[in-house]
Amino acid sequence: MRLKDIGEFGLIKRFQGKIKNDSSVIKGSGDDCAVLKLDDDNYQLFTCDMIIEGVDFAKTDSLKLVGRKALAVSISDIAACAGIPKHAVVALGLPKNMRVRQVDLLAKGLFDLAKEFKINIVGGDISASDKLVIDVSMLGKVEKDKLCLRSGAKAGDIIMVTGSFGGSIKGKHFKFTPRLKEARFLTDNFKINSMIDVSDGLIQDLGHILEQSRAGAVLYGSLIPLSRQAKNAQDALCSGEEFELLFTVSRVQASKIIKSARYSFKVIGEIMPKSFGLRIIDYKNKYSKLKFKGWEHF
Amino acid sequence: MRLKDIGEFGLIKRFQGKIKNDSSVIKGSGDDCAVLKLDDDNYQLFTCDMIIEGVDFAKTDSLKLVGRKALAVSISDIAACAGIPKHAVVALGLPKNMRVRQVDLLAKGLFDLAKEFKINIVGGDISASDKLVIDVSMLGKVEKDKLCLRSGAKAGDIIMVTGSFGGSIKGKHFKFTPRLKEARFLTDNFKINSMIDVSDGLIQDLGHILEQSRAGAVLYGSLIPLSRQAKNAQDALCSGEEFELLFTVSRVQASKIIKSARYSFKVIGEIMPKSFGLRIIDYKNKYSKLKFKGWEHF
Repeated sequence: MRLKDIGEFGLIKRFQGKIKNDSSVIKGSGDDCAVLKLDDDNYQLFTCDMIIEGVDFAKTDSLKLVGRKALAVSISDIAACAGIPKHAVVALGLPKNMRVRQVDLLAKGLFDLAKEFKINIVGGDISASDKLVIDVSMLGKVEKDKLCLRSGAKAGDIIMVTGSFGGSIKGKHFKFTPRLKEARFLTDNFKINSMIDVSDGLIQDLGHILEQSRAGAVLYGSLIPLSRQAKNAQDALCSGEEFELLFTVSRVQASKIIKSARYSFKVIGEIMPKSFGLRIIDYKNKYSKLKFKGWEHF
Repeated sequence: MRLKDIGEFGLIKRFQGKIKNDSSVIKGSGDDCAVLKLDDDNYQLFTCDMIIEGVDFAKTDSLKLVGRKALAVSISDIAACAGIPKHAVVALGLPKNMRVRQVDLLAKGLFDLAKEFKINIVGGDISASDKLVIDVSMLGKVEKDKLCLRSGAKAGDIIMVTGSFGGSIKGKHFKFTPRLKEARFLTDNFKINSMIDVSDGLIQDLGHILEQSRAGAVLYGSLIPLSRQAKNAQDALCSGEEFELLFTVSRVQASKIIKSARYSFKVIGEIMPKSFGLRIIDYKNKYSKLKFKGWEHF
């Protein structure tokens, strides 16, 4: 059996079945961050994201943007749990023939964003590697009553998003600003039932919420906000690395969020019972069933 | 300027000059772990280690041992700070044609060691990659008064080590047991002034202690414990990935440690003033100057 036969998510499930953690782990593998006991009022968040040349960026891409992205994807994970990023360590696999000037650019992209988000870069590891590899591990903090997970969606919840979707590959996957302010605004002022950042694609990441929450959903195709770079509606539904927030709230909270008129939060659907599955009402008002399709590594 | 012109450690220094951290960081880059504020009595330790196919292991090596090593090197870093490992996240870059059975072996090596050391595997990231890459980031905890850093060596300190040195490449680099028990025994019962784990080579890692402590040292060549796999004395001094502890203590503490007769701690030299540099008394009782020579990635 090859990796492509079970896929990235099949492999993750295979691992999860073998892990036994102690009671200091509030939430292990299966969410945007691990959630760990910290003190009476706060949890610690812990996440890592590896980006690799030829997969997550091309050899010809700006190294400053690559360094920026390496850190930004982890900030987005902390944001999805409504936390505040604090510390990061950076493991670098660098090709031997790389110029110091190139590594400086990579570091500048990463350090500048760390400064912007007040994140301490507290250590790392450097290794020789054929292809450029960057793995950032990040620690964050979240007040216990503000933590958002994928598992809290309830039938009747309204599904909402930040920003617009599609065509991230044309630039947004490098230049996005992690939705940290938006996440904190939401959790500071409203009751958010579940949240995730869209890294694998809108449908697939909604699928993660549905799986963890044992729920179904209906999406209103005509309400999905399309970015200018989106090829079409299908692209908006499947495009990975959009790094927008996808969250669910009660109907009452949704109307309060819309009335707040801070940031641009949009309604795109509704959480349904699990038996409903995941369906979309398309532009012709027809229901169709959706598969959780998006980015898979294998 | 290429990476080989400034080397791994030149690059690390270049980065360090650009990082500004806040007061929650007790010790950032430059030690075995980052040391972070946690609570009144404890610090948090944070470290990462990336291992890459073709650099840290061969394509033909046992994947169970590779998985084990990926976790063991980070445990060794936590041990060097006299801490207790708690949680880890694992980033995996996997070749697309890898068999699921092979990934299972890799996971088994890693999970078995995690169980042995009571470490929670709380998350990770999986990516496609040409070569197998594993980056483990680990969190640990250490009582404030038990923390050991590289920077505390004082002229007159006795330099001691665990175990024996040389020829690690013949198997020890895979099969070593991180010296966690020994580190905790030392810090629970004695006053340890400085400590490091030998990953780059005995001389080079002693060099890290001397640099951080602004000190010099003399090594007694005839006292360096040679492993059976050591080619010769030079090999014992330079062999990387031995993962033994190298630590310094006052003369009084050293004699107490030796009298304790728990584990096998050996004296190998003495800390001197910085102006002395690093010298070795060889088997003919001749002094010679040593360069900090060991493993460099570039």
